[in-house]
Amino acid sequence: MKTLIVHAHPEPKSLNSSLKDLAVATLENAGHDVLVSDLYAMNWKATVDAADFGPSAASPLQIARDSGRAFDAGTLTPDVRAEQEKLLWADTIIFQFPLWWYTMPAILKGWVDRVFTYHFAYGVGEHSDTKYGERFGEGTLAGRRALLSVTAGGPESHYAARGINGPIDDLLYPIQHGILYYPGLEVLPPFVRFGTDRMTDADYPEVAKAWRQRLLTLDSTEPIAFRPQNFGDYAIPSLQLKDGLEPTGRAGFGLHVR
Amino acid sequence: MKTLIVHAHPEPKSLNSSLKDLAVATLENAGHDVLVSDLYAMNWKATVDAADFGPSAASPLQIARDSGRAFDAGTLTPDVRAEQEKLLWADTIIFQFPLWWYTMPAILKGWVDRVFTYHFAYGVGEHSDTKYGERFGEGTLAGRRALLSVTAGGPESHYAARGINGPIDDLLYPIQHGILYYPGLEVLPPFVRFGTDRMTDADYPEVAKAWRQRLLTLDSTEPIAFRPQNFGDYAIPSLQLKDGLEPTGRAGFGLHVR
Repeated sequence: MKTLIVHAHPEPKSLNSSLKDLAVATLENAGHDVLVSDLYAMNWKATVDAADFGPSAASPLQIARDSGRAFDAGTLTPDVRAEQEKLLWADTIIFQFPLWWYTMPAILKGWVDRVFTYHFAYGVGEHSDTKYGERFGEGTLAGRRALLSVTAGGPESHYAARGINGPIDDLLYPIQHGILYYPGLEVLPPFVRFGTDRMTDADYPEVAKAWRQRLLTLDSTEPIAFRPQNFGDYAIPSLQLKDGLEPTGRAGFGLHVR
Repeated sequence: MKTLIVHAHPEPKSLNSSLKDLAVATLENAGHDVLVSDLYAMNWKATVDAADFGPSAASPLQIARDSGRAFDAGTLTPDVRAEQEKLLWADTIIFQFPLWWYTMPAILKGWVDRVFTYHFAYGVGEHSDTKYGERFGEGTLAGRRALLSVTAGGPESHYAARGINGPIDDLLYPIQHGILYYPGLEVLPPFVRFGTDRMTDADYPEVAKAWRQRLLTLDSTEPIAFRPQNFGDYAIPSLQLKDGLEPTGRAGFGLHVR
């Protein structure tokens, strides 16, 4: 297994950093290769701008078009190209981050915004009567798996089916489906720890044990059964789910899981 | 009306920047006061780190605790304090941004991560048998209104009830409910333009007309009826919605709208 861990926390002694360190040790001890992109330690630039695209940046700037031209010409900045190469090297990508305001920290969103360029992560594949590009189940990163490892400060009940924050699966859908499944990654069920605001050192061994167990069983873990875009479930080009495919009463994001 | 516009696009000639400029002109012509936080033009720092908290940053760093101490002591960085002051000055806050990977650009997420500190946007109010802090309908920004103005590259059908991206209201819920309603803002229905990837100059007048109309009727626009946290709809402290309050068949994020 070749694993890339993308890590987004500024404090090396935080729970998130401990889980990242534990993942490295656990996977390496099991004989796997591991690379880490520790975004804070790398002083990762979080904002997309014209400087990302070198001579391919036009005026006025168009992010999609210009990032695609820079990708094609090999003129993306070295930091972005290095991340794209790590993604192509890996068969498994783990994202370790705290839920800040119900989604990923800005530095990690900036990794997505900058690394997932046109012609690499989107704008891939032809459009026809039966295909709307290669995405949602196809694409550059097809054949690889991704896994979110997330800490949430609040208690689990707040993220339950009737919890005020909304269900955790729905909060993570824009990331798991919209960012990861889009360029072809299979997404494993997330590893989420709740109530971390009130965690103490005494709680850590249980968390570490659960995380180790997940890490050592990645190979046998079934991905979330998101519906592929181009294989009959959706009308093309409207990309509406065809009638009658879902269990009665299911709606919203849940429609897109088989 | 005192309006703060928080704007997140790097290209002054983009559709987003045009909509921002139009909002400034329209509101000022109508006699309102307007401030703009143009995050790219300000070279906004997108990542939270110890430098944000001055002498209040501890080692190991704890973002919530240390940001609250810096807020209390007045030692947050000047850029963050200026944004907090603008928020307190305003009665209306407009966010203008493109949907990138189904959520806000990193630079805007970094504005939230850094400006919405502990004791300012969260960690406000006491906990008791009937209150779980002041949030979701109460809080520092109560009495003010917020509005998202968002552009989405893809067509509207992809964001419809059965569209592959998920319903736009659900995609925006973590922002509208989790980020804006949380510290007390009332959230007006969003202004969303779809299909902007294929928009031409000929399409702009219609968009501008619709945006102007929204801007000039903000006073009479009803906010989204999110359920306040502390007034009986939720069990405390589990914050689960009590049974029987929702229309039959409603689930997920939709539960939290009356």
